[in-house]
Amino acid sequence: MKHLTAFFLTFFASFTLCCGQITDPKATEVWQPEPRVVTPGQGTKPPSDAIVLFNGTGFSEWVSLKDSAAAVSWNLARDSSMTVQPGTGDIMTKRVFGDCQLHLEFRTPLVVKGEGQGRGNSGVFLQDRYEVQVLDSYQNRTYSNGQCASIYKQTIPLVNACRPPGEWQTYDILFTAPRFNADGILLMPGRVTVIQNGVVVQMNTEIKGTTEYIGLPRTEAHGKAPIRLQDHGDLVSYRNIWLREL
Amino acid sequence: MKHLTAFFLTFFASFTLCCGQITDPKATEVWQPEPRVVTPGQGTKPPSDAIVLFNGTGFSEWVSLKDSAAAVSWNLARDSSMTVQPGTGDIMTKRVFGDCQLHLEFRTPLVVKGEGQGRGNSGVFLQDRYEVQVLDSYQNRTYSNGQCASIYKQTIPLVNACRPPGEWQTYDILFTAPRFNADGILLMPGRVTVIQNGVVVQMNTEIKGTTEYIGLPRTEAHGKAPIRLQDHGDLVSYRNIWLREL
Amino acid sequence: MKHLTAFFLTFFASFTLCCGQITDPKATEVWQPEPRVVTPGQGTKPPSDAIVLFNGTGFSEWVSLKDSAAAVSWNLARDSSMTVQPGTGDIMTKRVFGDCQLHLEFRTPLVVKGEGQGRGNSGVFLQDRYEVQVLDSYQNRTYSNGQCASIYKQTIPLVNACRPPGEWQTYDILFTAPRFNADGILLMPGRVTVIQNGVVVQMNTEIKGTTEYIGLPRTEAHGKAPIRLQDHGDLVSYRNIWLREL
Amino acid sequence: MKHLTAFFLTFFASFTLCCGQITDPKATEVWQPEPRVVTPGQGTKPPSDAIVLFNGTGFSEWVSLKDSAAAVSWNLARDSSMTVQPGTGDIMTKRVFGDCQLHLEFRTPLVVKGEGQGRGNSGVFLQDRYEVQVLDSYQNRTYSNGQCASIYKQTIPLVNACRPPGEWQTYDILFTAPRFNADGILLMPGRVTVIQNGVVVQMNTEIKGTTEYIGLPRTEAHGKAPIRLQDHGDLVSYRNIWLREL
Repeated sequence: MKHLTAFFLTFFASFTLCCGQITDPKATEVWQPEPRVVTPGQGTKPPSDAIVLFNGTGFSEWVSLKDSAAAVSWNLARDSSMTVQPGTGDIMTKRVFGDCQLHLEFRTPLVVKGEGQGRGNSGVFLQDRYEVQVLDSYQNRTYSNGQCASIYKQTIPLVNACRPPGEWQTYDILFTAPRFNADGILLMPGRVTVIQNGVVVQMNTEIKGTTEYIGLPRTEAHGKAPIRLQDHGDLVSYRNIWLREL
Repeated sequence: MKHLTAFFLTFFASFTLCCGQITDPKATEVWQPEPRVVTPGQGTKPPSDAIVLFNGTGFSEWVSLKDSAAAVSWNLARDSSMTVQPGTGDIMTKRVFGDCQLHLEFRTPLVVKGEGQGRGNSGVFLQDRYEVQVLDSYQNRTYSNGQCASIYKQTIPLVNACRPPGEWQTYDILFTAPRFNADGILLMPGRVTVIQNGVVVQMNTEIKGTTEYIGLPRTEAHGKAPIRLQDHGDLVSYRNIWLREL
Repeated sequence: MKHLTAFFLTFFASFTLCCGQITDPKATEVWQPEPRVVTPGQGTKPPSDAIVLFNGTGFSEWVSLKDSAAAVSWNLARDSSMTVQPGTGDIMTKRVFGDCQLHLEFRTPLVVKGEGQGRGNSGVFLQDRYEVQVLDSYQNRTYSNGQCASIYKQTIPLVNACRPPGEWQTYDILFTAPRFNADGILLMPGRVTVIQNGVVVQMNTEIKGTTEYIGLPRTEAHGKAPIRLQDHGDLVSYRNIWLREL
Repeated sequence: MKHLTAFFLTFFASFTLCCGQITDPKATEVWQPEPRVVTPGQGTKPPSDAIVLFNGTGFSEWVSLKDSAAAVSWNLARDSSMTVQPGTGDIMTKRVFGDCQLHLEFRTPLVVKGEGQGRGNSGVFLQDRYEVQVLDSYQNRTYSNGQCASIYKQTIPLVNACRPPGEWQTYDILFTAPRFNADGILLMPGRVTVIQNGVVVQMNTEIKGTTEYIGLPRTEAHGKAPIRLQDHGDLVSYRNIWLREL
């Protein structure tokens, strides 16, 4: 037994040495927490944890900006899409959101009309304030910070990855909401990544403030807020809109 | 004429006031630079500015890690995919990359064999050092920081968005390379966003250092480096691999 | 009058052009909000909006970690400093904090005793979990991720900017707290900048998780939490501790 | 022997378990690289690795913006400071810099003259393009994004931490240079942290583009560039300017 003890002491000493360098791969395993399971989407089917904001069946998740008591009067089509009804105004979600992943598909009119900002104009407002521009920017020059996939009047997209008018296009948006301190001063700006038709066009872009048509972005403290889709007078269509809260 | 002059002076004064508040929407337009046009992909067709790393026709963009002079001996299939040939070792791109968008599709074997890390294991190494794990994590528990879509032994995915074995899955990866100073000290860590099957699983995640099976991530200064795919002994398949330099 | 009208039309047309390029510097002025006034500190006097955590007069802002009902039994000195009373345990603030700027001064013992981690060891825990190491690292080699100004066992400092034992040193710490989602999953890691004796040693460093002496950093969701100072058995002194909430 | 074997098997099994959880604190030590030693500054003495840009002895590190061949004609004073010589124009460093820590002290005139932007106006341009505003903002209201410690016409400071006219004030600036891709498109914006008189006033603020008096910030690709100090016609003084390359 004596020898055995001696053997063990030696063993432990060398063990301490060896392990200081980590020799056991288990040492760097982390078992908790276990990420929850999400069944990914397929075709038009969204991921299992997504909030379906629009799938063609109606506007139950939306209200009109002009009159939140009135029914949304954009047009539903048989292909499960909706189209802006010019003059009826923007629509926005009943629910409010913070950090999220947002998927949607949009289509600018096949029959091209107008030019620059006047062609297939709409927009996706994150937290009711920060616009990812929707525009027919296929062979349609406008100011770079106003073309499709720009953070409108803030940040030009990395590239122009637009499909032609009449074709469905996708936006996959990763949004981190801004953070404000007790003074209402911005402590951590919002950020957004946008993948358009599978091509990254905004990459962790800092949001500079509210989207303003005239003047500079403003900073205003706020909490969770709706997603808003813009009626800019053009017959832009949307379909397959879902959101995952992060 | 006198009155006219007076009128103009007044006019200019008020003009200065009005314009200080910006009344002209043109004022916030930015026209330069104009983002270059990229034709987005469709189905298996990559975006027009992508470097096609694998489309099923061969291994012209790849070398074997074991012997960069030898031909790659992973298996080509008629469905334009390739499959790990166990024992032949990892393969890596001939070209080297920094910041990039990487798309690829992978499939773990339909016939399930083994468990934990022993089931459908492979991996995508960014800059030859930073692994986005590939694993059959469908109803197959392992350590969270080693499951599919983890930054291996660093960061667990936000959720488990895996498809079942035998189904093709997608990775869309946005990678920002780390930056080192003249001392070789890390000044700005690398970052990675991963979207798996359309679900964000890593969101602007900081890379903590090199991927190590045993021990802790290490920091080592380096420049551009290849993409590497791992031979972990399992019959994992890949297809439709392309990369856009950012 | 007719001519005048024509003149005006011309004028407005060119005006629109000119202003689209912004010719008035007022256009880019932002007047709101107005940052509130803070009287900066001078010598040992803190900024006017600081919460004074320790100025030598007593431990009214602190409790003992071991027994929050018991009085703090670290030693007060006539020079307005306090010194660890070995064996009495860590002390922590009664108040809890999120994002903040923290200033403090520390001194390791003039009489050098021990080596490596055994010399002048203490620590500043942000949110009770994330340690900025305090150590006598003046000509005293230890592991790089455990030397003074490391984020303990996570991130080595950019340089070793320590003063000799017995001299007062300063830490100016900018801390952004981590953000967690409803699953308790880390959505945005904490960040810390540390300036030691006027030299930046941690620059917007991502915090990898809780500080662990043994094992890897862990991620656990939490809200605001105290500042904690460590009793590591060495006679480390502190003075002039204040914090500004951000 | 049989029993001994059995004992060992048990032992190893439990050992693997124990070590998988890391029981040895050495396992998480990182010894390489070892941060180099920097002797911190004291009073007006800069850190040992600093490039001294101005210490009162002359303008050897500077050139005039107007005529880089001509001698700098700002005024040297006996107290080791320099003062703007109105009308001679900006001065800039001969050397060019990227990521850096910059320390300087400034003083606006004791005899207050003018108001708003007309009182004690100067500025520190990082990489010749990005201005940290210098202004007498002590009880002197101007637009928030133009007051002292603003990123001029971009980002207002978190608070107003100015000292009265005639008193020396400090800026400690941490700057990360922007990164551009091969298209000249901004891939990663510059960032700046500013501590004024010991109070954080800009915290990891994203730089939105070049500083423009009239119009919006512009994005232009560039490499390393000088530090520039502005002659805005006011008798602003500087002293004790040093920079550490990061």
